[in-house]
Amino acid sequence: MSPPRRGSGPQLIAYADRLCGDLAGLRRLLDGPLAGAFTGVHVLPFYVPIDGADAGFDPTDHLTVDPRLGTWDDIAAIAASHDVMADMIVNHVSDESAPFVDWLADGEGSPYDGMFLTLGAVFPDGATEDDLITVYRPRPGLPFTRVRTHTGGMKLMWTTFTPHQIDLDVEHPTGWQYLLSVVERLAASGVTLVRLDAVGYAIKRAGTSCFMIPETFEFVDRLAAEFRAHGIQVLVEVHGHHQMQIDIARRVDLVYDFTLPPLVLDALYRGDSGPLRRWFEIRPANAVNVLDTHDGIGVIDVGADPTHPERPGLLEPDRLSDLVEEIHRRSEGTSRLATGVAASNLDLYQVNCTYFDALGRDEDRYLTARLIQCLVPGIPQVYYVGLLAGGNDVDLLERTGVGRDINRHVYDSAEVEAALSTPVVQRLVRLLRWRAGHPVFDGTFEVLDAPDHELHLRWEHEPSATAVDARIDLAAATWTVVETTAGSTRELHEVDDL
Amino acid sequence: MSPPRRGSGPQLIAYADRLCGDLAGLRRLLDGPLAGAFTGVHVLPFYVPIDGADAGFDPTDHLTVDPRLGTWDDIAAIAASHDVMADMIVNHVSDESAPFVDWLADGEGSPYDGMFLTLGAVFPDGATEDDLITVYRPRPGLPFTRVRTHTGGMKLMWTTFTPHQIDLDVEHPTGWQYLLSVVERLAASGVTLVRLDAVGYAIKRAGTSCFMIPETFEFVDRLAAEFRAHGIQVLVEVHGHHQMQIDIARRVDLVYDFTLPPLVLDALYRGDSGPLRRWFEIRPANAVNVLDTHDGIGVIDVGADPTHPERPGLLEPDRLSDLVEEIHRRSEGTSRLATGVAASNLDLYQVNCTYFDALGRDEDRYLTARLIQCLVPGIPQVYYVGLLAGGNDVDLLERTGVGRDINRHVYDSAEVEAALSTPVVQRLVRLLRWRAGHPVFDGTFEVLDAPDHELHLRWEHEPSATAVDARIDLAAATWTVVETTAGSTRELHEVDDL
Repeated sequence: MSPPRRGSGPQLIAYADRLCGDLAGLRRLLDGPLAGAFTGVHVLPFYVPIDGADAGFDPTDHLTVDPRLGTWDDIAAIAASHDVMADMIVNHVSDESAPFVDWLADGEGSPYDGMFLTLGAVFPDGATEDDLITVYRPRPGLPFTRVRTHTGGMKLMWTTFTPHQIDLDVEHPTGWQYLLSVVERLAASGVTLVRLDAVGYAIKRAGTSCFMIPETFEFVDRLAAEFRAHGIQVLVEVHGHHQMQIDIARRVDLVYDFTLPPLVLDALYRGDSGPLRRWFEIRPANAVNVLDTHDGIGVIDVGADPTHPERPGLLEPDRLSDLVEEIHRRSEGTSRLATGVAASNLDLYQVNCTYFDALGRDEDRYLTARLIQCLVPGIPQVYYVGLLAGGNDVDLLERTGVGRDINRHVYDSAEVEAALSTPVVQRLVRLLRWRAGHPVFDGTFEVLDAPDHELHLRWEHEPSATAVDARIDLAAATWTVVETTAGSTRELHEVDDL
Repeated sequence: MSPPRRGSGPQLIAYADRLCGDLAGLRRLLDGPLAGAFTGVHVLPFYVPIDGADAGFDPTDHLTVDPRLGTWDDIAAIAASHDVMADMIVNHVSDESAPFVDWLADGEGSPYDGMFLTLGAVFPDGATEDDLITVYRPRPGLPFTRVRTHTGGMKLMWTTFTPHQIDLDVEHPTGWQYLLSVVERLAASGVTLVRLDAVGYAIKRAGTSCFMIPETFEFVDRLAAEFRAHGIQVLVEVHGHHQMQIDIARRVDLVYDFTLPPLVLDALYRGDSGPLRRWFEIRPANAVNVLDTHDGIGVIDVGADPTHPERPGLLEPDRLSDLVEEIHRRSEGTSRLATGVAASNLDLYQVNCTYFDALGRDEDRYLTARLIQCLVPGIPQVYYVGLLAGGNDVDLLERTGVGRDINRHVYDSAEVEAALSTPVVQRLVRLLRWRAGHPVFDGTFEVLDAPDHELHLRWEHEPSATAVDARIDLAAATWTVVETTAGSTRELHEVDDL
């Protein structure tokens, strides 16, 4: 059975190997130096292999823990003291996975026949230029890859991401059974939260965008029901227009708030809380709130709707373009090295940069951003590089040529120890412990009126008679938190006061 | 008017910038240290820009010499003493070229409307999976890229190579006029040979391979007629099954013999002249004979027909696979770093490696390979890295991530000077001078019987009463050339004797 969930406290998000070698090391870190800071941890893909074409997001065997990290028992051991979130790679498998190799060899004779999606299965009568343009993608090419089968004949596989990630036909009984086997396996090891990776692309229909169409919602409902029957909540990962996140949030347990990374940067760069406050008025509360993840800082999430450009985003085009340039400026150009070439900043999907570098390594601004993150309704989730106030890893970027690697540093234990002893990280850990232990965050949230350069947020919790009232000066990166507990009030200005 | 052609003597093939900075430097080299070695030079793309997405093969302005290299006058100056071969990039232009940018902005109002090929223009009723699989490609993805037009609407451009190389509709009057303007420009500067780059992909028809179909031959005929009217010969560049090269050779002035690089390696690796001799029986004589070019060592050119796998290649599958492994072994694994990952060696398109490294930097084998190259009917063409017996440039490969850059070293003048003074290069230059000046190569060619480990080739020229009779021991990499001139005979065993 799954252990109980530990609520909305902060969660760490990390690659076990890149932060601390393996799963046992991750457990030691969470129970040791980080004790009390996190109630949960999102362990990024730990399946075989963790170092494929997409850093674990292209498993060849979704049912086995990569032996370099440990075993399912190590997952269960972490789950004994922390909520464990795991990824479910819904949309595809590696082209080296045994089922796909078997199907290439045996075709209709393979038990996996039907598990993988071809162009012809969706467009039996052919696809017109309009059909293909209507398929939504964040990349300029088409999502198809030719493969050679045992007969020597070719098939055109649907490959939304890289040519080595073969899309599943999740509606075919074979594909669906495969997904159910993953559900069972995760539940058996005490996982209580599952992130559905790239699920927006899972369902394809000719003539549609093949992205978050009504049939996708129905599919997510079916899959979430299976997880719920095992006591597991589902987090849906979709990048796109903010209204889509609002719509999705109504139908699922949890969504990401991917608008926060750019909106908080915008607010701190400009000393203007306007766009952030407008977002507070409409945003869903059942959100995992991030400032950084293993992916980049979303541009698409605050821009105009890419499938309906007439729907505006949370930031005006010029302001969004300025934001991108300012990230590049504050990171001294390193983020530009890691970020795709696009016709304009508005065509960018995301900017690759550590959050600390995006704020020019200004510790006060950085902790102010993290304070805002902790005060937003939902689950604050902190990426391991952000936890350690890491800078852009240009060496790794140059070695691999993978833009996102600039924010995926591989730490050794001495580096982790050194980072944990720096004042900025110690203050961040203190902030997270305050957030993790404070009863007020089970209460109600309010955004109060304030001048444009300020953000005034308030939490109250009646049963525990506590309140937290935060006035944040975005321009100065200073703040006052008034904390009321059982009638007594104290005023805090520094993380060290918390 | 074009200067007269200088016959079938050796040609250099080089990027002006990578060998000697600019066109003036190239001329100094040809007229100085290399005087007498080359009767012609293929100057790799020198148009604006020389450093685009595909090292000059994606011009934004095909009518202008990149000012970093010089001007059209520099081309004409080289043409005063050497045949000059230039590339015509027939299939595509850069997505940054002025006509394409203009068309994106103005659509049907642009004077360039119709110049660029869309999926819909070829498949107005849509393309089925079979249609798309039938389109021949050496890459696993599909050759289409979405672009946004002025109206905000998207188009799906045909992009055979990279997403930044937009295929032309060469059959549309606007595309054809563009090509004619390039013909005029080349003729005006004394170019006498034109290489039609990737012309096999130029014509597309729904339901076909879109590669070297009958309509492509008709198009090449039309284009070659325009060149011939200006005194220019046409070299057609197509990689593919050897029978296709034979068929093409019947219809055009010149084809490449891309089978020689792998066949000569195979012969020297195994000490077996079998496949090479079988090729001599059927090969076209109107060929440009290469061992190395700016591209890799062709695998596809000696393998089974990729569009009709039942037609065998010049090397059996196992032997071809062994050849690829042997290149990697002799280059101490560096070529493997530069060569695409493929399911098997037979799916490889080409192996990226300098020819000197492919022979393990064995000078005797290297000069034996060059001797064979000089004795094969046609025009011997020597790549600048091969001329200087250059090794694999792993640094450049790592810096750019472009596999072919392993064989595209950028020399400075000190490096060129040092290389020219090495014994292996001095002997190669001597060999080329012998080939350039010898009247026998205007005569008749014969392959004589010999044991398997030998190659016995003979040239005779009646009017000059000369003969060259070469017995090459492939296993030992030794040879005997018996040269008869006006009744006297001498026997040569070393390049230094030539």
